[in-house]
Amino acid sequence: MRIAILGGTGEVGEGLALRWAFHTNHDVIVGSRDPERARSKAREYETELDSRGVDASIGGFENAMAADRADVVVLAVPPYHVGDTVEEVADRLGADDVLVSPAVGMKREDDGFHYHRPGAGSVTRIAADAAPDDVSVVGAFHNLPAGRLANLDRDLGIDTLILGDDPDAKDIVSMLAEAIDGLRALDAGSIDNAAEVESLTPLLVNVAMHNERLSELGVRFQ
Amino acid sequence: MRIAILGGTGEVGEGLALRWAFHTNHDVIVGSRDPERARSKAREYETELDSRGVDASIGGFENAMAADRADVVVLAVPPYHVGDTVEEVADRLGADDVLVSPAVGMKREDDGFHYHRPGAGSVTRIAADAAPDDVSVVGAFHNLPAGRLANLDRDLGIDTLILGDDPDAKDIVSMLAEAIDGLRALDAGSIDNAAEVESLTPLLVNVAMHNERLSELGVRFQ
Repeated sequence: MRIAILGGTGEVGEGLALRWAFHTNHDVIVGSRDPERARSKAREYETELDSRGVDASIGGFENAMAADRADVVVLAVPPYHVGDTVEEVADRLGADDVLVSPAVGMKREDDGFHYHRPGAGSVTRIAADAAPDDVSVVGAFHNLPAGRLANLDRDLGIDTLILGDDPDAKDIVSMLAEAIDGLRALDAGSIDNAAEVESLTPLLVNVAMHNERLSELGVRFQ
Repeated sequence: MRIAILGGTGEVGEGLALRWAFHTNHDVIVGSRDPERARSKAREYETELDSRGVDASIGGFENAMAADRADVVVLAVPPYHVGDTVEEVADRLGADDVLVSPAVGMKREDDGFHYHRPGAGSVTRIAADAAPDDVSVVGAFHNLPAGRLANLDRDLGIDTLILGDDPDAKDIVSMLAEAIDGLRALDAGSIDNAAEVESLTPLLVNVAMHNERLSELGVRFQ
């Protein structure tokens, strides 16, 4: 399967790119608004993987070109760019393609981070509203600790929650999630349930901030 | 320490009463609007504990009388009764007493449960606003699976998040939480951070609902 990670030069994008290239045989493509930066980060990821004995070929393209080459397109961009990014790549998406939304809106206040719920209901809903009718949108990877994900020396042992209205698309994304060692995919229902999933991300940041011995937290449902 | 559990006849209250009586030497008092029901449930808990070889004496009283006898008062009542219950017992609380708020507002929609955030910002904030100025309010025990908590045969191995503006009161509640086998207390900051904690409860319900092999879920931050 070919996976494009738009915003694949950021920390969450880097983590997903490295983990998929390291643990699976799927093709990974890094997208960015700046194609030069996409290529340069793709080379950087290849070097990192090569140092671990993995000979991966990672593509680097401008976002629309990256989406054009992929079956699954991950929107690893800031929450306020999700809608625009979907519109920018919409005519490159085919009917069987799957869009994945991991972004979360947060704002920092005095004692911690807070969920900034968009008027549409959730960032995942913004992606779904912006997507062409024949493209399925799945919410996933919202609550992953970015730095830990991008460090292949670190174990995960955590869960990611899968949201969506198309069961086949959810199955594809669950399969891709569970292909990463130490990541378990759990079904959290439809996109209507996305706010509670996105809201978990500021909570993870707050708990890490207030407990000295904890950092880069993920979550396990048990 | 003397712990009163107002609404101690409900499932969360039952679980906390049984666990504290089973795992600690703290005095447990069950409160209810109906004193007869409080006494009857207290006897029921004593019988359950006796069947496990624990000779505990559990009091049963009307809520205000229960609060009067306690150092720590847990508001294990439905979210819409939290404010009234605090007002009802306010003149029975001393300056060193601690009020604990575990309630969460949720509403069920088509595909899952959703967090119903009160206008005050959180149920924990409602409790804090209703409490006398010299009584500290701590948010805790929001995300515990009630049936599993009340079944002493079940292991926990999960976390509870502690919220509050008074560090000493948080320490007391953290100590009481960690006195329960398998429960870890983590600091989630001030009461301003309560909405993200309360919002985790409908998410736990949704995940259990959508994954066949999971039920009665708690959460572990790791």
